[in-house]
Formats: sequence, structure tokens, C-alpha cells
Amino acid sequence: MKNVTSAVCTECGARYAADPLTTVCPACGGILDIEYDYDYIRSSLNRETLKSRRDYSMWRYREFLPVEGTSRVPKLRVGWSPFYKADRLAEVLGIKTLYIKDDGINPTASLKDRASAMAVVKAEEAGKNIIACSSTGNAASSLAGNAAAAGMKTYIFVPERAPKGKVAQLMMFGATVISVQGSYEDTFRLSAEAIDRWGWYNRNAAINPYLMEGKKTVALEIAEQLDFKMTDYVAISVGDGCTISGVWKGFKDLYAAGFIDRLPRLISVQAEGCCPINTAAKENTAKWRPQEENTLADSIAVGVPRNPVKALKAIRESDGIPVNVSDGEILEAMRLLGHTSGVFAEPAGAAGTAGLKKALETGLIERDASCVSVVTGNGLKDVNNAIKASGEPILIPPSMQLLLKEFRKIGDSHQ
Amino acid sequence: MKNVTSAVCTECGARYAADPLTTVCPACGGILDIEYDYDYIRSSLNRETLKSRRDYSMWRYREFLPVEGTSRVPKLRVGWSPFYKADRLAEVLGIKTLYIKDDGINPTASLKDRASAMAVVKAEEAGKNIIACSSTGNAASSLAGNAAAAGMKTYIFVPERAPKGKVAQLMMFGATVISVQGSYEDTFRLSAEAIDRWGWYNRNAAINPYLMEGKKTVALEIAEQLDFKMTDYVAISVGDGCTISGVWKGFKDLYAAGFIDRLPRLISVQAEGCCPINTAAKENTAKWRPQEENTLADSIAVGVPRNPVKALKAIRESDGIPVNVSDGEILEAMRLLGHTSGVFAEPAGAAGTAGLKKALETGLIERDASCVSVVTGNGLKDVNNAIKASGEPILIPPSMQLLLKEFRKIGDSHQ
Repeated sequence: MKNVTSAVCTECGARYAADPLTTVCPACGGILDIEYDYDYIRSSLNRETLKSRRDYSMWRYREFLPVEGTSRVPKLRVGWSPFYKADRLAEVLGIKTLYIKDDGINPTASLKDRASAMAVVKAEEAGKNIIACSSTGNAASSLAGNAAAAGMKTYIFVPERAPKGKVAQLMMFGATVISVQGSYEDTFRLSAEAIDRWGWYNRNAAINPYLMEGKKTVALEIAEQLDFKMTDYVAISVGDGCTISGVWKGFKDLYAAGFIDRLPRLISVQAEGCCPINTAAKENTAKWRPQEENTLADSIAVGVPRNPVKALKAIRESDGIPVNVSDGEILEAMRLLGHTSGVFAEPAGAAGTAGLKKALETGLIERDASCVSVVTGNGLKDVNNAIKASGEPILIPPSMQLLLKEFRKIGDSHQ
Repeated sequence: MKNVTSAVCTECGARYAADPLTTVCPACGGILDIEYDYDYIRSSLNRETLKSRRDYSMWRYREFLPVEGTSRVPKLRVGWSPFYKADRLAEVLGIKTLYIKDDGINPTASLKDRASAMAVVKAEEAGKNIIACSSTGNAASSLAGNAAAAGMKTYIFVPERAPKGKVAQLMMFGATVISVQGSYEDTFRLSAEAIDRWGWYNRNAAINPYLMEGKKTVALEIAEQLDFKMTDYVAISVGDGCTISGVWKGFKDLYAAGFIDRLPRLISVQAEGCCPINTAAKENTAKWRPQEENTLADSIAVGVPRNPVKALKAIRESDGIPVNVSDGEILEAMRLLGHTSGVFAEPAGAAGTAGLKKALETGLIERDASCVSVVTGNGLKDVNNAIKASGEPILIPPSMQLLLKEFRKIGDSHQ
């Protein structure tokens, strides 16, 4: 990989060659970070050559990605998700300029497809044909789908609480699924033991530094879709910490390679019922404490985050704003996204918007600002919570008289 | 509209000016068809100018669409859905060349987004700000989503059996939803009465000739994604009859404008439990008979199709092949799409693939043929049926011993 210089430990700073099986630091067990030769990137790609590309997927950014030149790109079309200027939502929230990046529009309906597509490429580079992971759901289904399209086998560990839709999805993709009666932490540990025992390729995001490099493509797209004129803020939900780290890495890479001339501040949104990273960020300490997982936003219900180091670094470096939101605020954000913008988000997917709303209401950010809110997953993944947010329809036999009666009841003026 | 010549009645042949409120023929009540000036299209667009366009949505085909030059394109990014060469699925089915057009990857996760985006444009042209429809689910949620993004209000009538996911989705988009305790036919009638009473814009697909013009963009994309080298067959599920009519219209338009030099044969797939159109097609008669709606593929459970005339014409003109499939065959097709290709289809979305499989097995089509199978909707819309198709995961407490025991039970060799 001509564009990659090394894998650097985020704890002790040791440097290693970036091979596809590189996971944690052999010296201290710290999480690794992939480093690039930005001069090389700058010499081989610029904004104009990028704009002329016809590959509308995450692989249009190949110079920014840690893959071999000879590696084939996976089959599923991941990335280049829709980017909307959300004027009506902006008005409701009271912010001058707002964009929605709808990453629920991906092959398996979440941002995690970006990491899983990368995992499939790196597993192939490593000569592996079985990939495994633990996940609250989205990493799992995205891995199952992307691996199925590539003809690879998957073993997937999910906590029992993962929504039915997500589990059904990965069963459909032919994964061997182990539903663990315990917490996300229990699930993670059993997966780690199995991966170690059988030598499967490891798609646990925090351990595998390449996955964050896949996730960062959402930031690369946001920048390009903004014509490289960055907004003041980017709001994103935070669970394990890998996605916000990936987003930050993407913007930093673009900045280092001269594609953007300023970096946005990150709004790090967690659920009030499970916010270990934001708690540490607010206390300005790297010493996070485990928490219970009390939120309906299952994708960010991570009491023992696997990537606190990088996540806290991203918040700190970006002069970020930690915001915690209640489940009620998340459901309200789901409603707002749907009603004003036709975007259907799962709870964790709407949390970024909920956090932005709260940050505006509490004066944490100014009303004449510009912001991108990243929707990380589709609401169809978690219909039960969508029903909680949306209420029930009018149920009647086929009769105009009964319809008129129901309209009167709800105060609808059609008579 | 310089590209449109008229709206022609499919029953009596009467011609009318194509205005946005044109619905059925004033003379005989027949369904109308939009006709184009193909010389005009040919003079303003060719394959090369088309290829150079950067708008990757259904609106890249504006010359082929019945919209005013001044009309603004709706916000949601509809169309240009993924197109995959499905070699492993081809091998399993025993066909030489197979492509999957995954129209479940659309903003509200079905092909119906194409019709609803068109409805929003035509409603705006007509000066209406309320749109209504009846639907088995997908037309409804797509209308609700596309209208929400455009700031329009919607009234939506669904039969009570519509899956929860679809209903939740449209509630999230802020629609007023009327769930009718009756058949699709009952639902349709109540919606027609309400639309008539209050003068709402009518998005009932069969009645509104513009919607099929939106749907036809899936055919335009298929042709362009094939670099205009058409396959022998295109397999698609059939309910109301509007989608297959739209697909056929798209291919015919391309042929008439000189973009493709041959037309594919359509494989018209219905459920055994509800196949009025295929029954009439097999009997080679225009006299279809109402049927009960006995299939788990809710999106094509239409016992009284609203567009039998155009659908039967499409099958006849394309030398089409009607194939009926059982619910078991549909579930098997869902599994095959997921396991081999990472594509998660709802039952009706997998029916095309089920029909192709059956057509190959029964010798209706040759094994050295090429075919496109259109996946019309995403499996997340109907998780309960996905669970039926996929089975349950291994459920255990977090213990390696118990995992080994379960692996032995299912014959997995990892020990």
C-alpha cells in the first residue's frame, strides 16, 4: 500500500507495518491507528480528479483507504448515501443551515456497511474466508450481508436484546448466529474467545484498525457533498466510540491532504441511560467508567465502550460537544426527521439530531451555525420503537360515515 | 411538456392533452397512457449525453418523463438503485447470466418510491398540496415519505393486513393513516370516495397514468446499467399490474427512441394464492376474474387488480411468461438472494427470483439465457416473514462450553 506508512499504537506510540492481520499493539495491547503518506495522496488525487470519478460508492476514495491496489472491491454498493439540505427541519430546530446525511440508505441499512465492506477486503487480503464479530446488531447484519455477497462465511455474536429485524436480516444472509443471554460485554468476550480459538478474521471494530478507515468514508462523502466547504458542526451518535473516531479520522485525513481548509466541531451524542464516553469527555478525563445500558437506542447502548481512547481523542481534538439525550428526545427526533424530511431513522440513527436539538435549546451551539446530522441507521430495523414514536393509525371498517366520525374525533377538518 | 404528445385511452383510443389532473378517459373510463414524441427525445438525448450526466437518480431521464421543464425535482434521492451481476445465484439457479436490480435500496425501501416521487411533482404542477392513495403498504409509505420531504400532507388508506413495519414507516412520515378492516378492494373503494369528496391529488397507481411513468425509470436504469445491451428476460413480481406495465413502457420507450435494439421477454410472477393476471395471461384472454388474496407476499396480494389491461398487454406484447409461485418458493428465493448475494428482499421482492427459478426448472426458459431479476422491496419491511424464511439463531448464555455443544448439535465442525 503506497499510501499507508504504518500502524501506530494510540497508547504507547509504537509503529508497525500495516498488514491485514494487524490488530492491537503487540507491545502494550493498545488500539492501533493507520497512518498515511499525505504527500503521496496529494500527488495522486485532488478535488477535481475526485469529482470526475464515476464510482459512486465508498471506494471512490481509494487513495485514502488502507487497501492493496490489487484488492477487488466488494460486490455490494456501499456508501455515497443521500445528502439532503434539510430546510424545514432546520426551521423546526432553529438552526440556520442543516444537512442530513442518510446512511440508513446502504445495502444493509446502516453506516456499519462501510466497516464491513472494508473487513471483507482485508479478510481476503489476509487469506481468510471466515469472518466473525460481536455486535449490537448493525455491525452484524452488515458483516453478514457484505460477506455473503463476497462468498465468505460468518459467525456472529449478538446480545439477546438485539431487535428481531436486525437478527432476521443476518440470518437471511446465511450467518451462523449466536444470540448471547447477557450484556454486550459478555457477547464481546465470547466472540473474542471464539475468534482466538479458531483463527477467524476479526471484525470487532475497536480491535481492527481498518474498520474505522471504512467508517471514515462517511466523512469523506460529507465533505465532497458539501463541495469541500465544511459546516461548523457534525452531529453523530456514539456507542462503542468507533464511528465518531472514524468520522474524525476522515475529516483529519482530508485536512492533512489539503482537501478541506477547516475542521468541524463534533457533537457527540449518547443516551442519558448509557453515556460513559460523554461522561468522561465532560469530566475531561481519559478515565471512563462502565455504565448500565438503559436506553431503547440499542445500537448505542454500550456500557463498556471498546474504543474510548480514540473517541475521547476525537471529541477533545475537535473541541467537541458532548450531549446526552433521553429516550423521549430520541423518539421525538425520529418523528421530526420523518415528518419534516421523509427520513426514517432507527433510534440511534436519530440520536444525532436529538443531540443537535438539545445543543441548540441549551445554547451550547449558536443558532446561526451550520451542521450536518448523520443518520446512522434505518428505522425499519427497529419497528417496535418506531411504533412507540409514531402512534397507531385510525382503524375502521370500510365506511365513509365511520371515517367522518374518526376525522371529527382527531380534529381533522375534512367533513 | 415538449416531449409529451398526448394521453391516450388504452380502451377506446381517444386522445387527450396530458395535463397533471388527467386520470381516466372521460369518454369510456379506460386507463390512459402517456405518449411521447420520440423524435424530440432522440434529438435532445442520446446514450453518450446520458452517460455523461451526474444526476444519479430517476431524474437523469427527464427527457423520458412527463414533467414540465420548470418543475422542481423532489428532495428524496429516488432511483439509480444498485445493479449486481449475481454469479453465485446464477449458478444455484442454473442460468448462464443473471443480474439483480435491488430496488429495495430506495429512500423508503421499495420501487414504489419512483411512482410517489412522480406523484409529488405532478401534484405540485396541479397546484395540490394534499395527496392520497390506497395501498398494500409500499405505495403508501413511499408516498408518505416523498410527500413529507416536499412539505405536502398525505391521507393514506391501507388494508388492515399491511405489515406493521410498513404502517409504522408511514406514520413516522406524518401521514394520516386509515387502516381499513377489509380487503384491498374495500380499501381502494373507500380511498376513491374520499379523494373524490375532498379533491385530493390521486396517487392510486392504476388511475393516475403518470405513476407508471415514474415506475418505468427502473427499466431505463436497467438498460443503462447493462450499457444498453439488453438481457433475454426480465423477471418481476406482479400484483396490481402497474409495475410490470411500467417496466414494459420503459423498455418500449427506449426502443422507440433508439437507445436499445431489442426488447426483453418479461417473466410475470404472481403468487399461486392470488394470480388473476397470470391466469388471464395463460388463458390468453383479457377477461380476468377476481381471486382471493391467499399469499404471505402482501405487496402482490391483489385479488382485484387495478391495471389488468396494461399488465396483460405488457405480457402479451413482450411474448411474456406467466409463472405462479408458492409461498414456500418465495421464502426459498428470499433465502437464496440473502445467502448468495447479500440482498434482503421482502416476499414480493423475492417473487421475481422465485419465478425465474421455477421457469428454469420447468424448462419455460433456456439455461444459457440472460436475465435481470428485479427486487421490488426490502426485507426489513416484513420481518415476520423474514423470520419464517430464515429460522432462529443459536440462543445460549455466554459460555464456550455451551457454544461447542450447540455447534456439535448443528453439525458445525468447529470444536
